[in-house]
Formats: sequence, structure tokens, C-alpha cells
Amino acid sequence: MHKRLKPYRIDRPGKLALKDFDPAAKPLSAGDKAADKERVADIAEGLARLQDNFYALRRDKLLLVLQGMDTSGKDGTIRAVFRAIDPLGVRAVSYRAPTAFEADRDFLWRHHRDVPGKGEIVIFNRSHYEAVLIEYVRGWIDAAERERRFARIVDFERLLAETGTTIVKCFLHISNMEQRKRLQERIDDPTKHWKFNPQDLEERKLWRKYHDAYEAALQKTATTHAPWYIVPADSKTHRNLMVSTILLEALQRLAPEGPPPNPGYKGLRVA
Amino acid sequence: MHKRLKPYRIDRPGKLALKDFDPAAKPLSAGDKAADKERVADIAEGLARLQDNFYALRRDKLLLVLQGMDTSGKDGTIRAVFRAIDPLGVRAVSYRAPTAFEADRDFLWRHHRDVPGKGEIVIFNRSHYEAVLIEYVRGWIDAAERERRFARIVDFERLLAETGTTIVKCFLHISNMEQRKRLQERIDDPTKHWKFNPQDLEERKLWRKYHDAYEAALQKTATTHAPWYIVPADSKTHRNLMVSTILLEALQRLAPEGPPPNPGYKGLRVA
Repeated sequence: MHKRLKPYRIDRPGKLALKDFDPAAKPLSAGDKAADKERVADIAEGLARLQDNFYALRRDKLLLVLQGMDTSGKDGTIRAVFRAIDPLGVRAVSYRAPTAFEADRDFLWRHHRDVPGKGEIVIFNRSHYEAVLIEYVRGWIDAAERERRFARIVDFERLLAETGTTIVKCFLHISNMEQRKRLQERIDDPTKHWKFNPQDLEERKLWRKYHDAYEAALQKTATTHAPWYIVPADSKTHRNLMVSTILLEALQRLAPEGPPPNPGYKGLRVA
Repeated sequence: MHKRLKPYRIDRPGKLALKDFDPAAKPLSAGDKAADKERVADIAEGLARLQDNFYALRRDKLLLVLQGMDTSGKDGTIRAVFRAIDPLGVRAVSYRAPTAFEADRDFLWRHHRDVPGKGEIVIFNRSHYEAVLIEYVRGWIDAAERERRFARIVDFERLLAETGTTIVKCFLHISNMEQRKRLQERIDDPTKHWKFNPQDLEERKLWRKYHDAYEAALQKTATTHAPWYIVPADSKTHRNLMVSTILLEALQRLAPEGPPPNPGYKGLRVA
């Protein structure tokens, strides 16, 4: 693994303070924004090439979980990181409030339904973690239920990992001030109005509670089979650089080459 | 519509002979392959920009149906045409033989399940048309059942169209000789072995029957609400150029701009 990525990878449960992670950090930066942008574009091409192998092998599965406060850049990350990738092998699933049908089932049901198949990359744009974030912050579940859910999430991710899924969980970590700036931009720029929802301002008032809920989730659900990455996300370019680097390393490990040839096809002639 | 595209758009049922369409034609070509390739890349960027509007508007739905003989380039088209597009708003669905669960239901069931939602582009990589192609060619259904299915397909597509879906159906039209060449390449190039299946040679023996079945499907299911495009596909570059041009025109019509601003947000300050 990239040496400077290591401190941001959390792969076992235990004490962790988000305040030890600077949302404005740029550990992978070359120190020049234009150069970083170019690397993001280069890595996107590299990802596309490796994904061809991954898809053709039809052997492993890759699940990317994206979580983060409002405006932390989940959509923007998907756009930048997967911009060169063949849509045949990638599926993005965006979760909103559960439908009545989904809410009638356990909190993992709809996420289990959507997991990647062999050779597939699936992006969870928000995820099963909302069941221990918004649902706890809003008081829909109590602390005891949240603990049970943490345990069930760890179990669920172990099932996926043991059955061939590489799980990469990214927490896009922005500062309170950066969120304010981004929300204000969505108001001030009329072309961004569609992204803005007055409800976002209500959510923002709960910033501290969300912050603590994320901290608890990271503490309880970081495992070797499903590690969290704390991605500093005040810089969009560096956020993209970090997420794409993490994925590139995963695909380099899983699919450095495509499937082997079949010796049985030698000499075959098509009529 | 692009003038030279018109003869390839079939939007009403009736007589049609595939032999009148040259699989090697290049009606949209600038006469230079490198220039055509560059235009495909340019259009892909244009599609990505318009898709941003389409996605943000969350109003219309777009369904692209891709059909064609083995090796006609369905996968390659998806890769080339959608290569710059944000995976959040595009979903590719590849159909194989129905599962037992799917086969227990009517032949449109699994396709209805997968239709695009508002603001979404869905690509059917093979589609409900397999139910009047392979199923007829292989003798699993008779001519009377095929007629009923043609009618039900027209009804189904009318439902989708009336409820806000723009339907674009592309038949990737290759010649018998081109298919032979491409199958042979998959055998001769070990890196392409994973794409080859000896079963493809059995299917190839049924070329004429598939040809006639496609002709019948085009005759029976071309409608104004769900037109077919006969895409000459012996040239991969021109095939990509034509499909991307058709989609560009659709998106230019549906989403030339993003959503309008919300005057109610004026002057709002984020705390």
C-alpha cells in the first residue's frame, strides 16, 4: 500500500478521534493542483484498463461504500473516479429514505439485494451505514439497537468478504466550515439550486451529532475484511486522488491481468 | 434529425428488407477514420454534459435497446458511447438466458423490472427482443406465439413511451463475412479467448434464420413511439459514431438545459 495512505486506513475496531484527522490534509498531493488533477485523470484511465480485466475474469467482486456529511462530495467522487469506466461492469446505487416495502424488512435487506456479482464493481452512494447514522441521530433507534446494528453490519460485511467481495469503505471527511461554504454556493449559484434542499439546513444543525455518530461507526465497524478509509475531503481534487488511488491498488491486486487463454481453441477455424 | 440518419430510422411497421441496408455503409463518416474516432470522443463528452442536465432535471427517462448478431459489437458500443458518462445516471443491463424465476413469469417481466426511472438512462444489452429472436429461431415458440409477442412488445413500449420514456432501439447490422472474421479473431488472439464460446459456432450456423427473425421483428415493432435504427456495424468506428449521434440528438431535445433556479432561495444565508 501507498505509504502515505496507511494512516488513513482503519482496519480494526477501537479508539479513534476524528479530530486527529485534518479534513484539509493532502497526503498524496504532489503539491500542485494541476498536477494532482492530471493524476486523477491518469488513474481513471488506469482503473478503466484494470476493470476490463476484472470484468473479463468474472471472479471477484468489488464494493465501494461512500459515506460523508451532506456536500462532502459523494456524487462528485463517483463522477471523477469512474469517468472513464465501462458502464457494463460498474453499477452505482444511490440510497434515499427506504420505501415502505424496504422499511418493512430488516435494515440490511435492500443493501444485500444490491451487492456486486462476479466481475462487477458496485458503488453504494450512501449505504447500510445510514441505519446507524441518520436513524440514530434522529432518535429513531436507541443506543442498544445501534450496538446490535454495528454487530450485524460487521457480520454482513464478513459474509460478503468471505464470498469473494473486496470491500472498500470511504468516509469523505469535510470540515464544518467547508460544508457551510458549499451549501452557500448551492444557494448563490442558480445552476446549483437543484442540488439544494432547505432540509439540508436542518441537518446541518445536527452537525455535532452526525460527527459523533460517524466517529462511533468508524470505531465499531473498521475490520480487516472491510476497512474504512478516512478521506480528507475539503479539497475535491485531493479527495478524488485519494479514492482513486485506493481503488487502483485494489484492482492492481485483484486483476493485474485478464483471463488466461484456452489452449483448446488452438487451430479452430470458423466456417 | 441528421439528414443522413433518416433512411436508417424505421418508425412504422411494414415491409422492410435487410438486404437494402449495407452493413459496410458509413453515411455519417467524414471519410477519414481518425477524424471519425475523434468525433466519437467529442460526442461522448457532449453526451456526458447533456446527461448532467437530464439527470438533474429528473423528469424524462431514456431507454436504449441494443440488439444484433453475436460479435456485432453491443459491448463495444456501450464502452465507446458511454465512456465519459457519470455512472450515477446510467445503468447497463445485460440479459442472458432467463433464470428459473424469470422464466416462470411472462417474457416481459424482467425487462419491465429494469426500465429507467426519472432522469435515468438505461441500456438494454440484448432485451425483450430475444423472446422473438432466439426463442423463435430455436423453435421454442411457434409463429402464432411470435405474432402475439410482437403485439405485446408494441403495447409494452407504448406504455413506457406514454409514461415519459424515450425509446431508442438500435439493430447493429453486420455482414456474415464480418462475423466470421470477428469470431476467428477471438480464436486467434489468446487475449480474446474469454469472449469466445464454442456455442457461438452453433449459433452461426443459424445465421439465415436469425437474419429473417430480425427482419420480421423490425417489420412488426417499428413505431413512432419506439423507432428502430438500422446501424451499419461492419465498421466499429462508424457504428459508434452513429449510435452516439442518435443519442446526442435525443438528449439535445430532452435536456438542452438543466433545471431552472428556485427564486425562493434568493438571499438565504447558511449559518
